[in-house]
Amino acid sequence: MKPIQVGLLGIGTVGSGVFNVLQRNQEEIRRRAGRGIEIACVADLDTARARSIVGEGTRVVGDAREVIANPEIDIVIELIGGYGIAKQLVLEAIAAGKHVVTANKALLAVHGTEIFKAAADKGVVVAYEAAVAGGIPIIKALREGLSANQIQWVAGIINGTTNFILSEMRDKGLDFDVVLKEAQRLGYAEADPTFDIEGVDAAHKATIMSAIAFGIPVQFDKAYVEGITKLSAADIRYAEQLGYRIKLLGITKRTDKGVELRVHPSLVPAKRLIANVEGAMNAVVVHGDAVGTTLYYGKGAGSEPTASAVIADLVDITRLIEADPAHRVPPLAFQSHTLGAAGQDLPVLPMAEVVTSYYLRIRVADQAGVLARITGLLADAGISIDAVLQREADEVGGEGSTQTDVIILTHDTREGDMDGALAQIQALPTVLAPITRIRKEELN
Amino acid sequence: MKPIQVGLLGIGTVGSGVFNVLQRNQEEIRRRAGRGIEIACVADLDTARARSIVGEGTRVVGDAREVIANPEIDIVIELIGGYGIAKQLVLEAIAAGKHVVTANKALLAVHGTEIFKAAADKGVVVAYEAAVAGGIPIIKALREGLSANQIQWVAGIINGTTNFILSEMRDKGLDFDVVLKEAQRLGYAEADPTFDIEGVDAAHKATIMSAIAFGIPVQFDKAYVEGITKLSAADIRYAEQLGYRIKLLGITKRTDKGVELRVHPSLVPAKRLIANVEGAMNAVVVHGDAVGTTLYYGKGAGSEPTASAVIADLVDITRLIEADPAHRVPPLAFQSHTLGAAGQDLPVLPMAEVVTSYYLRIRVADQAGVLARITGLLADAGISIDAVLQREADEVGGEGSTQTDVIILTHDTREGDMDGALAQIQALPTVLAPITRIRKEELN
Repeated sequence: MKPIQVGLLGIGTVGSGVFNVLQRNQEEIRRRAGRGIEIACVADLDTARARSIVGEGTRVVGDAREVIANPEIDIVIELIGGYGIAKQLVLEAIAAGKHVVTANKALLAVHGTEIFKAAADKGVVVAYEAAVAGGIPIIKALREGLSANQIQWVAGIINGTTNFILSEMRDKGLDFDVVLKEAQRLGYAEADPTFDIEGVDAAHKATIMSAIAFGIPVQFDKAYVEGITKLSAADIRYAEQLGYRIKLLGITKRTDKGVELRVHPSLVPAKRLIANVEGAMNAVVVHGDAVGTTLYYGKGAGSEPTASAVIADLVDITRLIEADPAHRVPPLAFQSHTLGAAGQDLPVLPMAEVVTSYYLRIRVADQAGVLARITGLLADAGISIDAVLQREADEVGGEGSTQTDVIILTHDTREGDMDGALAQIQALPTVLAPITRIRKEELN
Repeated sequence: MKPIQVGLLGIGTVGSGVFNVLQRNQEEIRRRAGRGIEIACVADLDTARARSIVGEGTRVVGDAREVIANPEIDIVIELIGGYGIAKQLVLEAIAAGKHVVTANKALLAVHGTEIFKAAADKGVVVAYEAAVAGGIPIIKALREGLSANQIQWVAGIINGTTNFILSEMRDKGLDFDVVLKEAQRLGYAEADPTFDIEGVDAAHKATIMSAIAFGIPVQFDKAYVEGITKLSAADIRYAEQLGYRIKLLGITKRTDKGVELRVHPSLVPAKRLIANVEGAMNAVVVHGDAVGTTLYYGKGAGSEPTASAVIADLVDITRLIEADPAHRVPPLAFQSHTLGAAGQDLPVLPMAEVVTSYYLRIRVADQAGVLARITGLLADAGISIDAVLQREADEVGGEGSTQTDVIILTHDTREGDMDGALAQIQALPTVLAPITRIRKEELN
């Protein structure tokens, strides 16, 4: 049988990984897929660099539309990124009847509904294993491996840059700004790191996972997004003393009222495996009602790990390329005609409705009665306290200090109730600085 | 469309989990599979107990062959276990044109070649996600999620009973026999625990993983199998002091000369995630040339976790039940006509050819020159030493003792060379007891 013909749009880090792995492992991949898979054409604005990567045997063009228009091409891989031209090209490829493989989480989290609809209408696949957690086959696990389950929650370290920064902050006791600079120097953070450190990239990925876990549309605009820029070395140290690590988690959870979808720093018990995921590694914990807690760990970025996911999608498409589309796994895990059916579209909850526990660090005047006032206000709001860590004044501010940190861990409460209580505590004259509030997840 | 009709052979712990999860999550599963899946008939020798589990709505029979002969049944789930009647029934179900889902690792590890051949001839699927690591979708990850990779090695904690025992031995500093009794009392170990504690169950699972990782036939008879019965609390303690944990690992590795396939206790660096997998949990580490190191963690046994895997197989079969068999994932990951092709069947290596590092505990007379003699014999065999831990005599044998333990960690060496060196060391008059030798894996 003729090898499957693939067109590659964009041959940067991931694209060159795809090209190299497909070449190196072509025999093994053919033995698995039952058919060869080859890159027939590469489009990149920098044709000279593209040529230097692919050598003489592969066609290189400067115009992506030439690839899409080529009737020989079966599958188009989109590795351009972003929502601009990438969106146009993906829609054009679909319209031309090509199957599409993409690593573009931003595109799918924001425009997924439109794209999957277009693909369904044309009977083509849009596959995106590489869009979440790089080489870890988490999309496959959620859509197929755990298909027996009512998924209850998913929580993941799904951004390597921020996990690297948090690992370094903890290891070396340094503050955010210092470590960010080091991460940029080492290539773990980009020159403009906003999407990573503000949690946007993790929120794109969490949005995609929420859709396939719960059978709801992608709704990035409803996600709560908070990054790691305000974390201090002190919070990491206090958390450690209380038996916790701080990780940037993408969380999505099913509740009776709707779906939680949120990205923020979280305290996680130090004994959980996910709390021990260090450096730029990724890990996703999935809790299903039948299977219980499962975890998936690996490299979340990089040339060949991401290529591993892209090529797995190519193999899946190759197997079913001549089959009736009804035989394929639905793109968002659930049959598309059941998305949005009555009673099945759980709303994404506003943050005030989210129920979780909290770590609070409150800078107070070191005088009698302060703790009693604070705990009294929490009690009035119905918030119960799990643990209190009160530092000696001189541990914090040096000898003769009149300030200290009070650290409080709470039990589960509505975020809206916590907001109200914190406003009152913040207004106390004995509270001397903005309160630090970090959510806490037990993940068991 | 009419729901898929499933016949269940054996409704014990896992079978009742399958029945309950299929009922509880039927709507969710139908939304994923695109078609209902229902247990139409259950066969169990104990029909009264079967009836008490399934209620009045489902047919219960005492004779499994009645299920197989029923033309309404699309898929047969075999949950009887063992190689006896289970093998007969699986072959008969295949001959009757039924797809088969099984959790029976022993059957597949020993008779897999015959069974998969029969299934291929009839154009039916034999699915077995539940046979390895319970609810963890590791078969899917290896066969599909990592299909881009040349898999280099797989190492897993794939027997919950032994991991529970090792966790307890370490936590409480107790010896094997004591903890085994406790595990039996708590239901973590069976009355006859031989298959678990001698490593046989783990070897069945490792055998299946070796086949799908490397495209070789299942060859349980070539597996090296060593259990945990000889481990002492002292070894676990010494390992800990050196920065390691001891885990029973099922390992399969590709080398230039062939495939390693072995189950034995192994020292693993304490900082690896898999070293921190405690109690009855399972975890499998897979290293691929493109993806690097990945890990999959979850419950390896139990009613609903195992049911989760069985039902995922049902959903996969349902999707493709009317498709050309060529569109399905090959049962052993590689297209069957390429198994055994020239140069592609790597042999399973004899243990003497395995290359690994070692932990040695040698009970010696506490006198000058003993360590020099031992290290000299290792050096003569070309074995280099990574670390030595020599205990003060009184730490081991009490005051006035004339004995002590010498602990040695080696670098990588051929097992055959180590066997030769150990025979010579054992023969030294200053070596007072049988040498303990535990293999060590870095897993990075």
